[in-house]
Amino acid sequence: MSKACPTAAVLIIGNEILSGRTQDVNLAFLARALGEIGIQLVHARVIPDLVDVITDNVNTLRAEYDSLFTTGGIGPTHDDITAEAVAKAFGRPLVRHPEALTRLLRHYGPEDLNDMRKRMADLPEGALLIDNPISSAPGFRIENVYVLAGVPMIARAMFEQVRPLLAGGPPLLARSVRAFVPEGLLAAGLKDIQARHPEVGLGSYPFLSGERLGACIVARGRRADRLDAAAEEVAALMRSQGGEPYVEIGDAKIETA
Amino acid sequence: MSKACPTAAVLIIGNEILSGRTQDVNLAFLARALGEIGIQLVHARVIPDLVDVITDNVNTLRAEYDSLFTTGGIGPTHDDITAEAVAKAFGRPLVRHPEALTRLLRHYGPEDLNDMRKRMADLPEGALLIDNPISSAPGFRIENVYVLAGVPMIARAMFEQVRPLLAGGPPLLARSVRAFVPEGLLAAGLKDIQARHPEVGLGSYPFLSGERLGACIVARGRRADRLDAAAEEVAALMRSQGGEPYVEIGDAKIETA
Repeated sequence: MSKACPTAAVLIIGNEILSGRTQDVNLAFLARALGEIGIQLVHARVIPDLVDVITDNVNTLRAEYDSLFTTGGIGPTHDDITAEAVAKAFGRPLVRHPEALTRLLRHYGPEDLNDMRKRMADLPEGALLIDNPISSAPGFRIENVYVLAGVPMIARAMFEQVRPLLAGGPPLLARSVRAFVPEGLLAAGLKDIQARHPEVGLGSYPFLSGERLGACIVARGRRADRLDAAAEEVAALMRSQGGEPYVEIGDAKIETA
Repeated sequence: MSKACPTAAVLIIGNEILSGRTQDVNLAFLARALGEIGIQLVHARVIPDLVDVITDNVNTLRAEYDSLFTTGGIGPTHDDITAEAVAKAFGRPLVRHPEALTRLLRHYGPEDLNDMRKRMADLPEGALLIDNPISSAPGFRIENVYVLAGVPMIARAMFEQVRPLLAGGPPLLARSVRAFVPEGLLAAGLKDIQARHPEVGLGSYPFLSGERLGACIVARGRRADRLDAAAEEVAALMRSQGGEPYVEIGDAKIETA
C-alpha cells in the first residue's frame, strides 16, 4: 500500500449494516472503481445512524485521506440524517437547494412532493449536486467529501457522475496466480519473491474447491512489467511444488464463503 | 442504538477487501451472531495489512468498545501479520504457543509442518487459544480482543467456540414490516411513530421488486411487546396508504443490489 498515490476512505452509514440485516456491497464496488482510476482505498468504516457519530467520523476521515466517500442516509425518512451530519462537520447550515428541489418536483410531481420528500433537497450550504438518474434525490459533494446513496444501484449511478471529476494516478493493476498448492508450501518462497519485488504487494488467499485446497497469489502495483515479473516467479514457485499455475490479469474475484 | 448493553466493534484486516477483490461477509455474520446474544455491534473498520495500522486500530477500538473482533491475517504467509500487530498493541512479546504448535503438528504431520506454518503458533504472550476445527491454526483472545480467521467458514467456526464465553444482554430483537408503498409516503407517519416509541429504533429501507417500489420498516429493540406495538402502528400506516403490510419476526434480510 503506497501512499504516493491519492488515497480514499469509505464511510458506510446505516444501522442495517451493523445489525447484519443488509449485506454491504458498496465497499467492494467503490474499491474497484477507485482502483481503476488510480485512487487507493485504504480505510473504511461502518457506523450507525447517529448525527454526532457521523459528524465525528466525517471530520476524522476527510482530514486523513485525500477523498472520502459516504454511502447511505440520504432518503426522506427520519433515519436519513447524513446531510445534516455532514453540514455539521463542515460548520455550515443546512439549506434547501433550489436545483435539487426542481429535480424532486420533476420526479414526483407537485402532489406527491410532500414535506418529508422535500427534505431530500436540504443540503449543506455550498454543496455541489451529484445527479441521481434513478430516483432524483441527489447526492452531493463538499470539498473532498462525496455523499452517495446507500442503495447500491443508485450509489453506482452516482459514482459514474463523479468519476470524471476525480483526479487519480496510474491505475492500480494486479495479476492473480492460482494453483492447487496449499499456501503453507508457498509461504517461504513468497517471502523471498516479496523481498525481491518491493514495488509489488503480494497477497496470499487460500481457497477450497470441492475438497481441494489451493492458493491464489495476487500481485498488486502500478507497473505492469514488475507485476508480470513477480507473477512469473510465483508461477515458477507453484510449479516447483507440483502445481499447475493459472495466471490472470487483474485482482480476480473468487468465492468468499 | 442504546449504550446500555454491551457493545462490540469489528476490525476487518486485509488488502483484498480494500482492493475489492474479496467481498467481505464476516461483518454481517458477526453482526447477527452478536445481536442474538445481546451484544450490539456499533462500529466496524476495514484496514490494510500494515502492522502499525493494525496496532493503532486495535488499541483505539479495544479501548472504546466492550469487545473487539478482528478477522484476517492469521495464516502462514508473509502478509499474515495480525498476531504480531496485536502483540505490539498489548506491549507483549510474540511467543511460540506450545499447545498451538501441538495442534499444528497433529494437523500437518512432522514433514509438512515447515517454518512458515510454525509461525501460526506464534501468539502474543498470555493469549488464550480459540480452536480452529477446520484447519487447526488457532485464533486467540487477549482481554477483550478476539482474533478470528478471515476465511468465513473458519471465522464462523471460531465464533462458535467463543460464543459461550461472551457475556451479552437480552437479545436484540426486530420486527420487519414491508409493503409496496414508497417510503416517502410513510415518512411523516414513521416520524410520529418513532416519537411515540423512543425505546424502539425504526429504520426505513426502500426496495424494488420487479418494477414495484416498496419499503421495509424495521423496528429494533429489546422488548418484544414494544416492537409488536410499533410494528402494528407501522402496518396501520401502510394500510392507510393503500399498502398490504407483511410483518415478519426478525431483521429480515432482503436483496441488496
